[in-house]
Amino acid sequence: MQFTIERGALLKALGHVQNVVERRNTIPILSNVLLSADRSASGGQVSFSATDLDMEIVDTAEAIVSVPGQITAPAHTLYEIVRKLPDGADVELKFAAGDDPRLSVSAGRSRFALPVLPAGDFPIMSSDHEGVSYQILRDDLKRLIDKTRFAVSTEETRYYLNGLFLHCLAEDGSNYLRAVATDGHRLALAEMPAPEGAMGGAGVIIPRKTIDQARRLLDDGTGYVDMTVSPAKIRFQFGNASLTSKIIDGSFPDYGRVIPKGNDKVMTVDAGILSKAVDRVSTISAEKSRSVKMTIEPGRLTLSVRNIEAGQAVEEAEIDYDNETLDIGFNARYIMDVMGQIGGDTVELRFSDASSPTLVLDPVDNGVQYVLMPLRV
Amino acid sequence: MQFTIERGALLKALGHVQNVVERRNTIPILSNVLLSADRSASGGQVSFSATDLDMEIVDTAEAIVSVPGQITAPAHTLYEIVRKLPDGADVELKFAAGDDPRLSVSAGRSRFALPVLPAGDFPIMSSDHEGVSYQILRDDLKRLIDKTRFAVSTEETRYYLNGLFLHCLAEDGSNYLRAVATDGHRLALAEMPAPEGAMGGAGVIIPRKTIDQARRLLDDGTGYVDMTVSPAKIRFQFGNASLTSKIIDGSFPDYGRVIPKGNDKVMTVDAGILSKAVDRVSTISAEKSRSVKMTIEPGRLTLSVRNIEAGQAVEEAEIDYDNETLDIGFNARYIMDVMGQIGGDTVELRFSDASSPTLVLDPVDNGVQYVLMPLRV
Repeated sequence: MQFTIERGALLKALGHVQNVVERRNTIPILSNVLLSADRSASGGQVSFSATDLDMEIVDTAEAIVSVPGQITAPAHTLYEIVRKLPDGADVELKFAAGDDPRLSVSAGRSRFALPVLPAGDFPIMSSDHEGVSYQILRDDLKRLIDKTRFAVSTEETRYYLNGLFLHCLAEDGSNYLRAVATDGHRLALAEMPAPEGAMGGAGVIIPRKTIDQARRLLDDGTGYVDMTVSPAKIRFQFGNASLTSKIIDGSFPDYGRVIPKGNDKVMTVDAGILSKAVDRVSTISAEKSRSVKMTIEPGRLTLSVRNIEAGQAVEEAEIDYDNETLDIGFNARYIMDVMGQIGGDTVELRFSDASSPTLVLDPVDNGVQYVLMPLRV
Repeated sequence: MQFTIERGALLKALGHVQNVVERRNTIPILSNVLLSADRSASGGQVSFSATDLDMEIVDTAEAIVSVPGQITAPAHTLYEIVRKLPDGADVELKFAAGDDPRLSVSAGRSRFALPVLPAGDFPIMSSDHEGVSYQILRDDLKRLIDKTRFAVSTEETRYYLNGLFLHCLAEDGSNYLRAVATDGHRLALAEMPAPEGAMGGAGVIIPRKTIDQARRLLDDGTGYVDMTVSPAKIRFQFGNASLTSKIIDGSFPDYGRVIPKGNDKVMTVDAGILSKAVDRVSTISAEKSRSVKMTIEPGRLTLSVRNIEAGQAVEEAEIDYDNETLDIGFNARYIMDVMGQIGGDTVELRFSDASSPTLVLDPVDNGVQYVLMPLRV
């Protein structure tokens, strides 16, 4: 195998794949990236693959391929070397079985020799593309992820909550693609009109690490992402890069029952003011609970935190509210997470009572819903 | 005590002092900042003091003082609250002994009540200003610190190396103020003509934490710093802020013996090229030793790293060198630290042999000297 590639193109491709590689691996080849150099009538192309056995990212880049072939080498070391090479350099990568079975990397007056492992030992995810395929705009997929992923659970015991539940549904004669995440204390839901061809696919729980990698890849490029969803796997194709991942084998809870329908005490408040006020009063909270009490009266919201050791904090804000006085408590972090995703200036909180779930709505985006469980205060 | 102060001025003063306060304290009052509000003919002034018992920072700011007085309150909490208040807000701080013995902090629609401890219990460093006093330009003090502090030891067993040795000396009929730091593996020395009045002061080992705080305070403002140096203490006065610190009670080693005088093998190289090349080859080093081998021949420097697990790296660079071929090894981090402080484009390395200290000189600043101990390669 031998090819020459511009340092920027090489860095970008390695940057796309190397994040999947864990820092510590008991299986040595999982620390490596698979390089596959091909030559065709239209020129040369190299693909770069990395995997953690649950997820695989493959990116391709153009290169001048003089000898086609495959080999694997340490992903993080190779990435660090290329990162430190001068901008604009031409990098030659070369491997020949024989006396010196190492990957040679050279650019200008720099020469590196890296240990390799055989390409044949590299685990490739079976690429059965069965399942439902559809196209989604990058910005639409970004929105579904950004509005919901903060609510994905990190508690490993309820493994079926450690991902984003992506599914299609028909409601009131329309078809939707919907993402839902919950950790049992809060829930985030974002939906959009179902892309053509998406209906009929299985609902899948996409692991948190996959969502984070997909979100990272969404930052490069524009246009559409090609999705393929089967009951066992999901595949995202972003231009030259593809991400294939196992999905979480479990049942996502019947979240619909958690979303309150009849909450009739409606408070409207400036989202930025609420977020900053909650941030300030929570300075006083005990580290763990971060509980903030809201006292809601017509025209006025009072936020308060009392902490025997650290003191007391009170904030007031103007609100639109025309109902009976309500005292209710929330985790400060959860309020700020939701406020960070509100698109407009104001936000609407719909309460039932101090012990029932509260619904949070974004007046400029009726495709999102947030549910917050109150804390006892 | 009662005063009103603009949020920006309060934040700046608290920012200057709160860094001294450790996150965990077994003595509760050390978590607090001492507020002292005074009224004079020319207006009101509040001073803010924080200490860790080894060091004290005091800053003062103008305020509208309606009731003079003193109290202490949690430094980090107060700083966090003020940081989160809106820019330009007027903040009122108020404390009255009685029913509610707490510090009230209010701004706009925000109100906080913080626990206090009596001002009388706050440990104040005795302010005997005995010793030698002199003035030094901020930029000169910055230079002495920046060129040397990276070499301060972090090894606690040799406590007398855990600081910067600042002292005056007469040499060849001139007087110098000199800063030296060493960790036994490398040494950094920076000097300047002694400021008026500095001669005769004791040589002092200034603790690392004090140096870091002084360097931080040097970033605000211009002009001179007033220094007072005694055998037990050092005091820096930066405009409104002052830093008083104990010094390390120990003898700094006779560093002069470590600085090689007769090294006659002189290599001149581009400092940026050397630093980047060392950075690249060290990607391959084992985490701990980070040893890089230099092979120096007339006109050519070859850097190499061999690591049985991670592979091999070789770099070449053009140099000015006209002597016998030399193989010598260094810690990559130490080379990069020194290169980061070289003022000009090129750097001069003066070698004796592979096991003797190497002298590094900056062609545009003859007031600095660096010594690197070689590693066996």
